[in-house]
Amino acid sequence: MRPHLSISRRTSRTPFSSRVEAAGATGYTVYNHTLLATSFRGIEVDYWHLCENVQVWDVSCEKQVTLMGPGANQLAQYMTPRDLSNAQVGRCYYLPMCDENGSMISDGVGIKINDRHWRLSVADSDVLLWAKGLAVGFGLDVEVREPEIFPLAVQGPKAEALMCRVFGDAIKELGFFAIAPFVYKGKRMKVARSGWSKQTGFEVFVNDADIGTQLWDELFAKGQDLDVRAGCPNLIERIESGLMSFGSDMDHTTTPFEIGLEKYINLDADIESLSLPALRLHTPTKKLMGLVLEYHRSLSDVNVFVGDQKIGDIRSQAYSPRYMRRLAFVMCNLEALNGAKTVAVNTDQGQATGTLTSLPFNFEALGLKACR
Amino acid sequence: MRPHLSISRRTSRTPFSSRVEAAGATGYTVYNHTLLATSFRGIEVDYWHLCENVQVWDVSCEKQVTLMGPGANQLAQYMTPRDLSNAQVGRCYYLPMCDENGSMISDGVGIKINDRHWRLSVADSDVLLWAKGLAVGFGLDVEVREPEIFPLAVQGPKAEALMCRVFGDAIKELGFFAIAPFVYKGKRMKVARSGWSKQTGFEVFVNDADIGTQLWDELFAKGQDLDVRAGCPNLIERIESGLMSFGSDMDHTTTPFEIGLEKYINLDADIESLSLPALRLHTPTKKLMGLVLEYHRSLSDVNVFVGDQKIGDIRSQAYSPRYMRRLAFVMCNLEALNGAKTVAVNTDQGQATGTLTSLPFNFEALGLKACR
Repeated sequence: MRPHLSISRRTSRTPFSSRVEAAGATGYTVYNHTLLATSFRGIEVDYWHLCENVQVWDVSCEKQVTLMGPGANQLAQYMTPRDLSNAQVGRCYYLPMCDENGSMISDGVGIKINDRHWRLSVADSDVLLWAKGLAVGFGLDVEVREPEIFPLAVQGPKAEALMCRVFGDAIKELGFFAIAPFVYKGKRMKVARSGWSKQTGFEVFVNDADIGTQLWDELFAKGQDLDVRAGCPNLIERIESGLMSFGSDMDHTTTPFEIGLEKYINLDADIESLSLPALRLHTPTKKLMGLVLEYHRSLSDVNVFVGDQKIGDIRSQAYSPRYMRRLAFVMCNLEALNGAKTVAVNTDQGQATGTLTSLPFNFEALGLKACR
Repeated sequence: MRPHLSISRRTSRTPFSSRVEAAGATGYTVYNHTLLATSFRGIEVDYWHLCENVQVWDVSCEKQVTLMGPGANQLAQYMTPRDLSNAQVGRCYYLPMCDENGSMISDGVGIKINDRHWRLSVADSDVLLWAKGLAVGFGLDVEVREPEIFPLAVQGPKAEALMCRVFGDAIKELGFFAIAPFVYKGKRMKVARSGWSKQTGFEVFVNDADIGTQLWDELFAKGQDLDVRAGCPNLIERIESGLMSFGSDMDHTTTPFEIGLEKYINLDADIESLSLPALRLHTPTKKLMGLVLEYHRSLSDVNVFVGDQKIGDIRSQAYSPRYMRRLAFVMCNLEALNGAKTVAVNTDQGQATGTLTSLPFNFEALGLKACR
């Protein structure tokens, strides 16, 4: 099925949509009520280009939820089991966001702007409503908003070179997950060394639509010799890199332990986090694992078996042209799996077997060599 | 632009998706993280068919948020400025849902299942998170969930005839916005006389995917002579009928007064509603109005003018083949509008003028005759 997407004001266009279209986007999804391209020249061509050059992504769909006021730190801490008591101004923190049962509400990056101001860059989930509900219910002195900010990601190994041409060499001093203000055409905009790929890069938090489109055009004008292209989060790259997508790989029925986020859960911290009491008592019964298959084509049946027993289901999948294997994320029932490593899936050409592995994929340990 | 929609687990398929595809859906949108068809044979053909026959709609995207427990009534009342103190079991209530500032969070239908159980049928907004946040923050004794329910709408003038063939003549006794349990293949499912059209009809709250698909098939088998077709909420019909869409015609920046929902706001009621204190002090500065244009084609520029002054912007629009006019919903700035009725819009063929009117459209008062 390759259906057409009907667009309305409810599925918002962005300040960059006309440029994304002009650049030849061929597939779209809707993310946080906003258009997000999924492909330009085909995800394999886009993949190689991203891994070897530089791309500019319209990720306006990455909604920003701001918590401002004396209660901002308290509300941010309520929302995540990660200990934020030593969080530093000007730093980004990956945050699982969990409810009072320890289940995932969303995930994303929290940015500590100052002691009374957090900004959350959220996955496809109206975190605004969750944060507002908590603020109103707990009577916190904090204003929760979703300001008009349109993140633009510059990703790929040549991202730093391109960013320096536009923002100057000060970009080089920005450490990983650091954020700082930069001035572009007289407008202060925050820039972070971050982004939803493992190819390194930056996110520019555009706060002015007109200046944002000028920035888009300048990135392309100054990056011609770097073969800069319009791009988007790439399915192959994110699966190879073990980047999980809220709504696909996890949802409201998943705890952070079940998707390998242990290191972001400070069980022993003396903090007021809504989810910690439940997470302290939690024993995971399922686990997201990697699956490596020699089968090339897309699997339409998501069931995964050991013998006749279903042990899990596929959440995301892509063919890796680099390792020449189909890779998938599988949510496994730990009791049914019982430690098995070899599993089977149904394909159009009969059953295929594959190997389960922990995430992120360790291709070397799996004996897989990159073809390029 | 007619882009392709990329589908992932995050943009959920439904138990009926394969049937919707087989029936020839040509356009889709994503609504509450779920696929929703937008067109089958083209929206004009679909429109006439809906107004004259009967259609079955997969509206699984109409998420159901349940509030269960001793605090259910209190939480439901917090969420809306409509007085629910005399709400009856087994009745549906249209509800604006507003935050503490009086702004729209969502809208939808609240169903009082019993004194400790409300179910909210919500628009494209994660109302689950808002309700959960309030419940946790206020410490209410209520469980908030989004159960696996897949609403199926049967809409159109022949809907009652078709429903009687499947569920029996008891369907006739169901009054408008009443809801009652019916048994289908041994499974109890609630049926309401409701739906997102003004062509009359029903919604079946399917709570079992397998039995739901059997129901789909039986509706088609028994409705052949009624020319039953797969359908979907129809843009033309909903605009002609004055049905507003959350995210397009209203959003978090809109109050219910600004979209004509006065009759659902009980300003004088002695109830605990989060939004009433703000709404009591609120003076609307904008208003959603209808626009009637002789121009046929879609308007790409959403700005609406009186002379050189911009007075508002188009939120939704469609060409009505019945009245042979383009109809639109326009959010007007009341001060800039200053009572004007004749406005101008930019088209590909220069400016076109049109008439502003209150909503819902009163075609007779506008001097417009139906052509069919």
